[in-house]
Amino acid sequence: MTDPGPLGPFPEAPGYANAVAADAADALASYRSRFAISDPGVIYLDGNSLGRLPNATARHLEDVVAREWGENLIASWGDRWWTLGRTVGDLIAPLIGAEPGSVVVADSTSVGLFKLAWAALRTLPRRPLIITDDLNFPTDLYVLEAAGEAAAGRDVIVVPSVDGVSAPEDAIIGALDERTALVSLSHVAFKSGYLYDMDRITHAAHEVGALVLWDLSHSAGVVPVDLAGVDLAVGCTYKYLNGGPGSPAFVYVNPGLEIENPLAGWWGHANPFGFETAFASADSIARFQTGTMPILSLTAIEPAIRLTAEAGIQAIRMKSVQLTTYLMELATEILGPLGFALASPTDSDRRGSHVAIRHADAWRITQAMIHEGRIVPDFREPDNIRLGVAPLYTRFVDIHTAVNRIAYLMTGGIVDGYSNGRSAVT
Amino acid sequence: MTDPGPLGPFPEAPGYANAVAADAADALASYRSRFAISDPGVIYLDGNSLGRLPNATARHLEDVVAREWGENLIASWGDRWWTLGRTVGDLIAPLIGAEPGSVVVADSTSVGLFKLAWAALRTLPRRPLIITDDLNFPTDLYVLEAAGEAAAGRDVIVVPSVDGVSAPEDAIIGALDERTALVSLSHVAFKSGYLYDMDRITHAAHEVGALVLWDLSHSAGVVPVDLAGVDLAVGCTYKYLNGGPGSPAFVYVNPGLEIENPLAGWWGHANPFGFETAFASADSIARFQTGTMPILSLTAIEPAIRLTAEAGIQAIRMKSVQLTTYLMELATEILGPLGFALASPTDSDRRGSHVAIRHADAWRITQAMIHEGRIVPDFREPDNIRLGVAPLYTRFVDIHTAVNRIAYLMTGGIVDGYSNGRSAVT
Repeated sequence: MTDPGPLGPFPEAPGYANAVAADAADALASYRSRFAISDPGVIYLDGNSLGRLPNATARHLEDVVAREWGENLIASWGDRWWTLGRTVGDLIAPLIGAEPGSVVVADSTSVGLFKLAWAALRTLPRRPLIITDDLNFPTDLYVLEAAGEAAAGRDVIVVPSVDGVSAPEDAIIGALDERTALVSLSHVAFKSGYLYDMDRITHAAHEVGALVLWDLSHSAGVVPVDLAGVDLAVGCTYKYLNGGPGSPAFVYVNPGLEIENPLAGWWGHANPFGFETAFASADSIARFQTGTMPILSLTAIEPAIRLTAEAGIQAIRMKSVQLTTYLMELATEILGPLGFALASPTDSDRRGSHVAIRHADAWRITQAMIHEGRIVPDFREPDNIRLGVAPLYTRFVDIHTAVNRIAYLMTGGIVDGYSNGRSAVT
Repeated sequence: MTDPGPLGPFPEAPGYANAVAADAADALASYRSRFAISDPGVIYLDGNSLGRLPNATARHLEDVVAREWGENLIASWGDRWWTLGRTVGDLIAPLIGAEPGSVVVADSTSVGLFKLAWAALRTLPRRPLIITDDLNFPTDLYVLEAAGEAAAGRDVIVVPSVDGVSAPEDAIIGALDERTALVSLSHVAFKSGYLYDMDRITHAAHEVGALVLWDLSHSAGVVPVDLAGVDLAVGCTYKYLNGGPGSPAFVYVNPGLEIENPLAGWWGHANPFGFETAFASADSIARFQTGTMPILSLTAIEPAIRLTAEAGIQAIRMKSVQLTTYLMELATEILGPLGFALASPTDSDRRGSHVAIRHADAWRITQAMIHEGRIVPDFREPDNIRLGVAPLYTRFVDIHTAVNRIAYLMTGGIVDGYSNGRSAVT
């Protein structure tokens, strides 16, 4: 056969036949055609950061802009926009094991987390502590500090991870006692991809009378979640849910929990168009909305979530596990000898949908991958390369090609051509 | 001439020649063609609630969706999106008399107001009081309460207006003393359109050592503002700035003020891609950003603001005053005898760009206006009809036609056909 060129595919390299066979057997294979993929030569492994554009979303947005905004103007508030945060919340609910009416979209993940954390702390005024760990997304730590300050000076305890890969679940549980008001963790750790045992932590928190607040940013849309026993959750819609850049976040409040939004606004008022000087909370989950929602970014989520729901979260998880397992096997075999170490859990039950690999030259390697390898990963300080797999559009052959391209960049001297200068945004 | 029909135009009615002459002389007349106006028969008088769609915005959004998101994916963060809140902030700055680098777009108006109010209260820990008035937008009152709670239990004093039209400026100033931490008001009142004497109130607040925070939602883009001596401001971009439904809000922080964002997040971090567990604030106005911004809603603001800047805020204000003055004259002459009363300041120096008229049947009249009169106003409880004029696309003849259509609806028995049942959203 002819030489496939330095960027592959690599039919002679180990595992190629497996990749081709797995793609042929993939029940989700057709979903790739539902996304805008302008350059099939680029392997996009950053769906964990920003999901791809569904074709339906582009069409939907044109209609919303031209017809709902341009033609119908304020009539669209009554027709659709006023309840859109709840509509989209109800689309998300089954993906995260939540009841209808318990999820609403509003604000950024950070602002949502702040509102929920502050709300939780207000309900337990005599408990001084918030427990989290250092695998959590750093903004979550800052936000928990802010919520602690807003709720009259609570302290945040950051339990350290031993290896930066696995969460210190035992130590977190060991830190819980009757002083704990709130336990807040990322369901899947943003760097290592560690997937927490949500039931175990939630149960332990409830044992001491504390509330739990999960950040589902790296699990929503790719890892099945069951929130039935959980108090509070928040999550991002622009990663595996493909809602578009910075699309607003969702918040979940257990319907059995009596809790109010401390950052009240007219979108959460029982009678919003009465414009009353006194606040009266809506009975529904709408009460966790505050100000006017960014409708264009909000409506962009809709077609994307329908796509995820259509594919089915269980099927997505099954393919995700297969993809990450395959990626870890290939990385061990092909990249291990080139100085890479795995930095994600080997147990797939404890792993989300991205895999981190470590290398002392990680920053330069990332640059070479993007600019010459036509692979899009992302870099996380100091030595971490994250490779995210999005089951709706990532193929097994993409994994095979990407790993072999990285090997080619390393062995062909291409990485050496990049300096170690860092830029803020890669 | 032939009968123009019951919905006009009304060449025989008083003031028609003035309207035609004013439109012919209008230096901004050509801007109307820059907006999507699908049905010229509808008179849209709600630009104070949701500005119209600029033609350039529809084109811009298509490009952002297809190219920046669909093709370039995460590379767009580094290319443009990461700094977009500041870019748009710098576009807004000259319209509100702010220095470059002092304005950033982030979150909703409510969340922005919360962050600024809490920040202000933290800098004056020994002062227990927040002063506002009952013409303020109700959410602002709720948010000030929340900020007061977050900053360790401050109280909000709501100074009452005597007539619901004019602000109690003297009483506000009389309420200030060394216990006052913050004065927060809406620059233009959402219901009556009262335009505060910003310099007077700001000066009085500074005399007692308090900080001021102005909500510019109903003035940005239509009333020139000079923030040079002001501490803090926040404002909406989807009204006169035409940024699209729920487009995110801007915050202004005086560069001379040493103040930190209490709701810190990675978008305000000095080294955001270091993902450090400790927060370190950016030096720039970026520090008032918190979480990831809704890029589609944010980028929709750009073409709209360029349009406003091109027309010039002074020319816009001049036309706005002419339009509201003309509207008040016609309303007095034609609608006064039909039971309407003006509910906006008669002095144009104290008036923003919308005019409120009152009538005991206001809700039914609003319904008749929308459904049969082809006029879009909005209704505010209990008896208020707001008529907003947006100088970039509202014509003098629109005002003439609208007022005469209202008279036709009243005298033709059409309003009587509507019941008094209220719906939440009109």
